Amino acid sequence: MPTFTDRLRRYQARVERALDARLPRAEDAPARLHEAMRYVTLDGGKRVRASLVYAAGAAVGAPDGALDVPACAVEMIHAYSLVHDDLPSMDDDDLRRGKPTCHKAYDEATALLVGDALQSLAFETLANDPALTVGAGQRLHMTTLLAQAAGSHGMAGGQAIDLAAGGKALQLTQLEDMHRRKTGALIRAAVMLGAYTRADVATEKVQALEGYSRAIGLAFQVVDDILDVEGNAETLGKNPGVDRARGKPTYPLLLGLADAKARAKTLHAQALESLAPLEDNGGILAELAGFIIERRQ
Amino acid sequence: MPTFTDRLRRYQARVERALDARLPRAEDAPARLHEAMRYVTLDGGKRVRASLVYAAGAAVGAPDGALDVPACAVEMIHAYSLVHDDLPSMDDDDLRRGKPTCHKAYDEATALLVGDALQSLAFETLANDPALTVGAGQRLHMTTLLAQAAGSHGMAGGQAIDLAAGGKALQLTQLEDMHRRKTGALIRAAVMLGAYTRADVATEKVQALEGYSRAIGLAFQVVDDILDVEGNAETLGKNPGVDRARGKPTYPLLLGLADAKARAKTLHAQALESLAPLEDNGGILAELAGFIIERRQ
Repeated sequence: MPTFTDRLRRYQARVERALDARLPRAEDAPARLHEAMRYVTLDGGKRVRASLVYAAGAAVGAPDGALDVPACAVEMIHAYSLVHDDLPSMDDDDLRRGKPTCHKAYDEATALLVGDALQSLAFETLANDPALTVGAGQRLHMTTLLAQAAGSHGMAGGQAIDLAAGGKALQLTQLEDMHRRKTGALIRAAVMLGAYTRADVATEKVQALEGYSRAIGLAFQVVDDILDVEGNAETLGKNPGVDRARGKPTYPLLLGLADAKARAKTLHAQALESLAPLEDNGGILAELAGFIIERRQ
Repeated sequence: MPTFTDRLRRYQARVERALDARLPRAEDAPARLHEAMRYVTLDGGKRVRASLVYAAGAAVGAPDGALDVPACAVEMIHAYSLVHDDLPSMDDDDLRRGKPTCHKAYDEATALLVGDALQSLAFETLANDPALTVGAGQRLHMTTLLAQAAGSHGMAGGQAIDLAAGGKALQLTQLEDMHRRKTGALIRAAVMLGAYTRADVATEKVQALEGYSRAIGLAFQVVDDILDVEGNAETLGKNPGVDRARGKPTYPLLLGLADAKARAKTLHAQALESLAPLEDNGGILAELAGFIIERRQ
């Protein structure tokens, strides 16, 4: 029986290979753009989103080979969002996972185009990659789901709210609304795309995964905020306290640290409870929730 | 019998209304992002791409109501590309069609997110909008076609080549490769999406429109380059000579002005020739080719 860490490593290795095969080759023109797209995508991140795709797929019995397609699409969207987030007009970050950010390693214009092209590639992959074996109608539904998660009512909208909130006080409901869009929407999409990779997935399983994905989508951000207060630069790979220094609203700021931790715990419990209708209580999905919520980076 | 100008005005008005209905409302949160998305998209441009969708659809007998969907998707991709192009790290333009560019009217971070969210919305629209009545398989094909036109082998790739070429001499084949991607790919997509809006479009008609779209896609850029030399600021709405001043390679620079004009004429003839297999020789598509090639702005 493989341990959780084994499974996670297998997912990470699997999506890395799948991305490598689907990204344009670095020697194809325009070479600099393609090289930069590979630089930001093949970077050995934690691959939380891809792992959620595989784990949700496993929970409903979808084939791994088909799951490569939504796993890659979601990681491409995530990678594009990080590249654009790091730009000087946004968070102005020089380092990402210990490497120079895209606009530092290349230049700002290239980073802009890298993000734009990765977004297009994510939709091309989901709409067209033959490894995904569901019917055309379900595939369109999956493409729509990802587009909505990425767009102005999802991730991009969450970032716009975050921008507008810089330095301003937010109510808890506003903070949650921001995070449901900014981080939660793509995490939810990862879980649901994994589920829909099985052509005949049962409605009650879809509903169970909806509940799970909403809870961990929000928990992910609560924990991020807690780590910004409690983490140290060594385990975190970036400087803690940055969000606070930027005047960004956070859960610990709004709730206090103890209540923020209690909120993460409640969301963790909700996530596990949602998994009940699934075989083996969702199997690795339960462990992934723990991994997301108890992580130190 | 409506004149060409009447038809063009009808297409322009039609896509304006269709975009207005499909863009998020300015009062929906995040309001500033949505307002900015509307600011850059509902701007009364020439709507060459939307007109090509409608005209190609008319040439194969696709219904206007269904054509609104690809017309909007193509215009959203075009609008996003202009917003990102105008950013300081790219062309650093302050004015677009006589109005402040997005990052001037709002700010750079908002302009970045406006482009990102418009790209997502274009794919959501094409994958999900119920006004498009073709089958799911054809719809996926259309979504794929747009993603490829926008991505690193299409528009974004062309811009990367353009960036890399700034100030350097290009061979004619390299210049053409750049333009086929940068402008040509989306113009081709507009024509082909119009064609595929008819569920049972005949292969020979698709092939005719392929030939047409490739010729006008390239002609569009040749004429742009000629206007940069010959146009005056008043008719052009922007300062002529800008591309030359930036050291960008252009057709007149590589071929001389007379040969560049001859090239535009040849491409015009190729476009018209390609239309022969269509009823009424492609009808308004022929006039649109003339409009694109003989335009003064």
